[in-house]
Amino acid sequence: MTTNSATNRQGAELLCVGTELLLGNILNSNARWLAEQLAALGVPHYRQEVVGDNRERVIQAVRDASQRARVLITSGGLGPTPDDLTTEAIAAAFNTPLQERPEVWELIQARLAGRGRPVAASNRRQAWLPQGAQVLPNPTGTAPGIIWSPVEGFTVLTFPGVPAELKAMWLATAEPWLRQAGVADGVFASRLLRFWGVSESALAEQVSDLLAQDNPTLAPYAGLGEVKLRMTARAKDGATAAALLAPLEAELRRRSGQNCYGIDDDSLASVVLAKLRQRGETLAVAESCSGGGLGAALVAVPGASDVFLGGVIAYANAVKQGLLGVDPLDLERWGAVSDPVAEAMALGAQRLTGSDWALAITGVAGPGGGSEQKPVGLVHIAVAGPGGCRSGEVRFGSSRPRAWIQALSVGEALNRLRLSLA
Amino acid sequence: MTTNSATNRQGAELLCVGTELLLGNILNSNARWLAEQLAALGVPHYRQEVVGDNRERVIQAVRDASQRARVLITSGGLGPTPDDLTTEAIAAAFNTPLQERPEVWELIQARLAGRGRPVAASNRRQAWLPQGAQVLPNPTGTAPGIIWSPVEGFTVLTFPGVPAELKAMWLATAEPWLRQAGVADGVFASRLLRFWGVSESALAEQVSDLLAQDNPTLAPYAGLGEVKLRMTARAKDGATAAALLAPLEAELRRRSGQNCYGIDDDSLASVVLAKLRQRGETLAVAESCSGGGLGAALVAVPGASDVFLGGVIAYANAVKQGLLGVDPLDLERWGAVSDPVAEAMALGAQRLTGSDWALAITGVAGPGGGSEQKPVGLVHIAVAGPGGCRSGEVRFGSSRPRAWIQALSVGEALNRLRLSLA
Repeated sequence: MTTNSATNRQGAELLCVGTELLLGNILNSNARWLAEQLAALGVPHYRQEVVGDNRERVIQAVRDASQRARVLITSGGLGPTPDDLTTEAIAAAFNTPLQERPEVWELIQARLAGRGRPVAASNRRQAWLPQGAQVLPNPTGTAPGIIWSPVEGFTVLTFPGVPAELKAMWLATAEPWLRQAGVADGVFASRLLRFWGVSESALAEQVSDLLAQDNPTLAPYAGLGEVKLRMTARAKDGATAAALLAPLEAELRRRSGQNCYGIDDDSLASVVLAKLRQRGETLAVAESCSGGGLGAALVAVPGASDVFLGGVIAYANAVKQGLLGVDPLDLERWGAVSDPVAEAMALGAQRLTGSDWALAITGVAGPGGGSEQKPVGLVHIAVAGPGGCRSGEVRFGSSRPRAWIQALSVGEALNRLRLSLA
Repeated sequence: MTTNSATNRQGAELLCVGTELLLGNILNSNARWLAEQLAALGVPHYRQEVVGDNRERVIQAVRDASQRARVLITSGGLGPTPDDLTTEAIAAAFNTPLQERPEVWELIQARLAGRGRPVAASNRRQAWLPQGAQVLPNPTGTAPGIIWSPVEGFTVLTFPGVPAELKAMWLATAEPWLRQAGVADGVFASRLLRFWGVSESALAEQVSDLLAQDNPTLAPYAGLGEVKLRMTARAKDGATAAALLAPLEAELRRRSGQNCYGIDDDSLASVVLAKLRQRGETLAVAESCSGGGLGAALVAVPGASDVFLGGVIAYANAVKQGLLGVDPLDLERWGAVSDPVAEAMALGAQRLTGSDWALAITGVAGPGGGSEQKPVGLVHIAVAGPGGCRSGEVRFGSSRPRAWIQALSVGEALNRLRLSLA
């Protein structure tokens, strides 16, 4: 091992701690999310490492990283159980004692009490942090992380493995810290355009000349039904970077037309709710194969209540008839997965709730229940509005998993409403 | 850097090569798949590393791994483009020249011709392998890998980054090789017990003596509301490993009682649906703050339709009154988030659908809408069944994000029904 001077240390490395990663029990989604964040911040990122819940290997990995990197970001191993040993191992890597932080211990007790959970003796371990380390607050969980520079020119930031806690801590504290610490190589500005109703390859062809650009760069990503284009500009300051993005965004919107539904943190649900709010109109749902997923997507958006009233989950045909007033003759003649039934469901939800708009979904989510005429992946969607009711089918393909077909149905229904409101 | 003797080298390490991993463009699903395979084969696996398409960093990572591991498995960087440099870097790590393999080059030409693809000069690079390395055949793509022992007691196996090619090559050649090479340390068998209603720290205390065991090992994991215990046994064969797990599982179930709700791929929804199916009973839901998430959790389970009938999403109070028949006086007197309203919602859903059981959820998901008396995170849940209706509150804590409170409400409601069916 050679000792580098502080100036040779470059960029950021990730160290993910968890035997469950080495056993293949879980995907390392934290590594991907953190890598995306580092890229967006313009922090060079050269290496990721995964080790198990093993003290000696964590110590070695931390020491090695401290020779190479300016910043080490760890995830996992901050919990209360004996196999949570990241904090202790990091302290040991630099021969530094742990020290109880009374204010952290008080916070942990308050958090647990607020949830009606007993305080276990083991929780107290989480309040012991290396001497000299700053607390990296955890706004949603019990275990805080640390921001600590044990040697000059090297800082370690620790996060729990629970993705939601890691993300909240990153956004509240780590990101501002990294912006100020001068680790970034210039300033990056990034915007994400979101698309529905176009495939990744078709969209990439529409913009192929722009994909070759150097600054700003443009990269396509495919999600579940959704496609995204990330624009990233690097410049000496944020205003210059933003100015580089503006003409590219305008060009992308011009070329993609109505397929572009939103930007950055928008969702189809948030965009639809905002449009309805602007018009002073309300929305209800009637769901068969999605079983409540459409309503759940809508209420995932804070403040949905001034637009979304509710609706009916009509999974059984008896509920479609009894609650939504679907005609049993239509069910018999066309089947539950049909335009007439989807329309009757939407109109039923509209009538029952008094909403201006209603969306209905009925389909074959699989894996069973498909036939030659009505295969798995066939979904009928109806949009009822002040001007009448429209319906249509969509085929997601019978090889798709059940959860995908359900999620795609929800997205497709929201997108049809979005286009109806355009 | 110290030089270990061959006998000190242990287990397998992964090295995934690809700048797209460091930019967060893709999830490292290869690492998870390979880790699962290694665990199933009983090959100890202590470390994973990711580096970009950078010659020096690949060379360093390979050299470091050759000091520690018996086997190094690499993925990525075997393609024809200039940024595919894994093979070359591995050869350079051991100062070994590359050598063209005419039989590989012929195969590459035949493969491309068979797909009607032109043969590019760059494809010829893929036929250059380190002197002394064996070819690891690629039955589905163009780029082969290598199996090579550049120093005694250390072998490197290389795979392309394309998951389907990697898997085919692994199963056809690498797995049999690992079985024969004596790297496997017996066979591993693993089971996951799932818990609701107990914190990770409380559960860990209940079983603290068992957490210290060596074989089988026991490790706790926290999810969203859920806690899991993974039991892993190592033995000379699968039957012996399973026999080691059985008494541990029995002991864990004895100690944890009703908190243990399932195993491996079970979910609270699948367990509840199975119990109701066994009893020949049906279920409906009435959802306010979860907005359909409870129904969606139920229909996520294939075959839910013989038990789950549907229900009402009563997000607005007008829908609670109009559809579910909640008394407006109760809404006024107790508020929408209260036991009387939760009970009226459950009874309404039961009556409307004719179900045997009904679950109702009403709460404050936040971030707005909380008050001192009814803070964010307060949720009331009612379970209506053939024997009557019961309700109660639960407090998830006002610092939790909206999506968590919604997801925890769904889990808690399903768990209360599970306990009612016990």
